[in-house]
Amino acid sequence: MSETVVVIYSGGMDSFTLLHRAISRGFSVHALSFDYGQRHVRELDCARSVCQKAGVPHQIIDITSLGAVMAGSALTGGTVVPEGHYAEESMKATVVPNRNMILLSLATGYAVTNEASAVWYGAHGGDHAIYPDCRPEFVERMDAVCRIANYQPVRIEAPYIAADKTQILAEGLAMGLDYGETWTCYNGRKLACGRCGSCQERLEAFANHGLRDPLPYEEQA
Amino acid sequence: MSETVVVIYSGGMDSFTLLHRAISRGFSVHALSFDYGQRHVRELDCARSVCQKAGVPHQIIDITSLGAVMAGSALTGGTVVPEGHYAEESMKATVVPNRNMILLSLATGYAVTNEASAVWYGAHGGDHAIYPDCRPEFVERMDAVCRIANYQPVRIEAPYIAADKTQILAEGLAMGLDYGETWTCYNGRKLACGRCGSCQERLEAFANHGLRDPLPYEEQA
Repeated sequence: MSETVVVIYSGGMDSFTLLHRAISRGFSVHALSFDYGQRHVRELDCARSVCQKAGVPHQIIDITSLGAVMAGSALTGGTVVPEGHYAEESMKATVVPNRNMILLSLATGYAVTNEASAVWYGAHGGDHAIYPDCRPEFVERMDAVCRIANYQPVRIEAPYIAADKTQILAEGLAMGLDYGETWTCYNGRKLACGRCGSCQERLEAFANHGLRDPLPYEEQA
Repeated sequence: MSETVVVIYSGGMDSFTLLHRAISRGFSVHALSFDYGQRHVRELDCARSVCQKAGVPHQIIDITSLGAVMAGSALTGGTVVPEGHYAEESMKATVVPNRNMILLSLATGYAVTNEASAVWYGAHGGDHAIYPDCRPEFVERMDAVCRIANYQPVRIEAPYIAADKTQILAEGLAMGLDYGETWTCYNGRKLACGRCGSCQERLEAFANHGLRDPLPYEEQA
């Protein structure tokens, strides 16, 4: 019987690739997504669709009521998402307070309930300078506490922690994944904007492979 | 200007005493309670009332929608609460998967938003053998990760970690606290049952002080 792993799956490129890495390696996979009232709700639609097609159990946990905890974040409020490539100050404004610890804690509870031995999430090297909860030391310390917080030890792993988006995309392309099934833009409009930090990082990754992004963008309309 | 501390306040004896320790030591206190659909909702009523009278900012975070994560716990389901003093097997059945890590993660996010430097919670020595997330090592590892998970470090402290309920009660009595303003029984009836593990531990603490518990019990009706 194969090992069960919970993969935190947002619907974006990195966790989409991670989900398929888990599947391809023979794990019994449970996909876990979070609805925290994010503006880019399209990513959850992508997540549902991908899991349904892949036959992967998928749970979306609704944490929109935790507004008081996450007050002040551009990810859920009405403010405009800062444009421009990961300018350090503008990206700091979009950090949801303690978000990854909250999501990983919930995922660990879910792992215990489902007898999973590990939780995977898609933090990667490009995030280190910006998000404290995407750094190697954070992953190590979360792993340390999740191993002892319950009778059932749960490991916390970030398989892409030393990779960048270009390398993650390389793995997915090698697996033949269709990135048209992912959503990245922080704005929740019909087409991706191509201008926010996330869109620019995504476009750069495709450009580094000499490929066109399968998702349509506003500037092309 | 005094240091701001978030105290996780359930409405029970231990966190009630802890809340007043923080107030008496001159901290700027934010009380944080959680509604996770617990059967003993009276404790939240106590929490509201105490905070209102003490003039302490109080936030109740509603996490009842996290039912899928907490599936299988007697604390929120319809099963009968096991009777008898902390019999190890029966108490294990009431452990909410990864509960304290989830609550502490949310509290840490709340602390960041409110510029608090620490989160206090009431885990004590009597819980060690039963709840992994009430043990000293767990507190140390949560503290280690909460110090680095955000730009603002947050300490995790359990001031009663080496104390038992009798000692905690001693501190509260010395502060002149009225334990009629707390709720302990796991059953959500009008009077405390006096038979569940929690009631028995509470009654034992009062007995150790040669005092009568100010709360009325069913057997006395």
